[in-house]
Amino acid sequence: MDLWFTENHTENVRFSIKVDKQLYTGQSEFQRIDIFDSEEFGRVLALDGYVMLTEKDEFMYHEMIVHVPMCVHPNPRKILVIGGGDGGTVRELVKYSSVESVDLVEIDEEVVTACKEYLPQTAGMLEDPRVNTHFEDGLKFIRHHENEYDLIIVDSTDPFGPGEGLFTREFYGNCYKALTDDGIMVNQHESPFYANDAYAMQRAHKQIVNSFPIARVYQAHIPTYPSGHWLFGFASKKYHPYNDVDFEKWKKLGLKLKYYNTNLHSASFALPTYVEELLKDVE
Amino acid sequence: MDLWFTENHTENVRFSIKVDKQLYTGQSEFQRIDIFDSEEFGRVLALDGYVMLTEKDEFMYHEMIVHVPMCVHPNPRKILVIGGGDGGTVRELVKYSSVESVDLVEIDEEVVTACKEYLPQTAGMLEDPRVNTHFEDGLKFIRHHENEYDLIIVDSTDPFGPGEGLFTREFYGNCYKALTDDGIMVNQHESPFYANDAYAMQRAHKQIVNSFPIARVYQAHIPTYPSGHWLFGFASKKYHPYNDVDFEKWKKLGLKLKYYNTNLHSASFALPTYVEELLKDVE
Repeated sequence: MDLWFTENHTENVRFSIKVDKQLYTGQSEFQRIDIFDSEEFGRVLALDGYVMLTEKDEFMYHEMIVHVPMCVHPNPRKILVIGGGDGGTVRELVKYSSVESVDLVEIDEEVVTACKEYLPQTAGMLEDPRVNTHFEDGLKFIRHHENEYDLIIVDSTDPFGPGEGLFTREFYGNCYKALTDDGIMVNQHESPFYANDAYAMQRAHKQIVNSFPIARVYQAHIPTYPSGHWLFGFASKKYHPYNDVDFEKWKKLGLKLKYYNTNLHSASFALPTYVEELLKDVE
Repeated sequence: MDLWFTENHTENVRFSIKVDKQLYTGQSEFQRIDIFDSEEFGRVLALDGYVMLTEKDEFMYHEMIVHVPMCVHPNPRKILVIGGGDGGTVRELVKYSSVESVDLVEIDEEVVTACKEYLPQTAGMLEDPRVNTHFEDGLKFIRHHENEYDLIIVDSTDPFGPGEGLFTREFYGNCYKALTDDGIMVNQHESPFYANDAYAMQRAHKQIVNSFPIARVYQAHIPTYPSGHWLFGFASKKYHPYNDVDFEKWKKLGLKLKYYNTNLHSASFALPTYVEELLKDVE
């Protein structure tokens, strides 16, 4: 039997992965959860039919959403992750001994349960004693926190379904309030290439620009996401994303990574002209 | 009727494009040539079943293979393009009034004929009076030229089929000889992500390192190529790819581009750690 997983990147573009074995399928209160093994990408997590991560390339996404802000902030101690139930973002965060606590706010407990069983590569570090997992709606959680976090990472699904509220002005405004005076917020920011994704990316950027004094966008190559060209939003109260960053201090930590490095840090903020223009259109 | 074009990125990964209308199919002496229209990508050229270009994203590839070396070289007058029968590389080159002549060496006349009819977006500038088209094997053409070109662009197909010889040490050595004392060679360098592509990329890099004193690799996001993460090789006798480049002089040319810009120029040489390691493995 020949099994293929197919994701529609748009109505007219399909990306298909040959499946070795389907391991888990569940329908939670929020979404459909699938986990399968594949020859090319190893284990794959899909939510509502969209690839969230694969064993082969999840390091690209998780390293870039975590180490860029962690290198910029001189002393990140208290961190909030919204979404990210697969645990990959937490895994990268707990590599820093300076981190005192990580609040993980994931709306869907079944994602965490399934990942703990089938994706120890990402979910294994959710057991770190510094990590507190809250099964709540991030949109509501953030309303009750003020001047508390050094860094907020919005590791959401796409801006439809359960992740929709995490792309709104209300949410970004509440993140601003929940951050300390020199806090940073980073979010996954969709792709600039396909029209619907680009529109979501433009709207998110507009809301962030309206909420933070410093708002920039950086990019990475993530082959299993639509177009392979993925953006992240960098929003900050005080620190510029690459000027005056103490890269030497970060290097001394000696973290062993596979994607992120300090050369690539600044370079990832240099965007193609058409992306710069999409961002300017909404500023 | 629902028509889909499907490319196997690997044995276990497929990328499919919904086809509006098939426009041209031919079998030349060298390869199968297909041109079709699609809703998402506009017109598409495929050779032997592999997407060579689409109207929507060809600018990314052509701008990056041309403007990076054209910005580095202070006075590029005589240029050789090997492959590139679709004309996109030539279109970018003739934007420079400093260019005196472009030799285009394409092995397959039927590619040029088909592109002139169906892809005026890229092939239109092949009529520029400075362009001389030679329907020859680039591998043989290059043997008879010495100290002649300021820039050679190897705009080849993949390293199997007709493009195979354009990834060999003999070929790169002959390119070295065909260049003037301060010449630059740039080539399309495959992707680092899928194992077979990465292996081809490593081999090509090794041959180039052995042939040129300066050999570096830069990257771009090209969504319709496998993984969307595409590399280019920059090989040079004298000029460093980004130190001491006169970016201000280039900006004064006032070229209107959609991908390349001078910030992105240097940034595109900052590679992910895993790619740096693949390249080091063969040096």
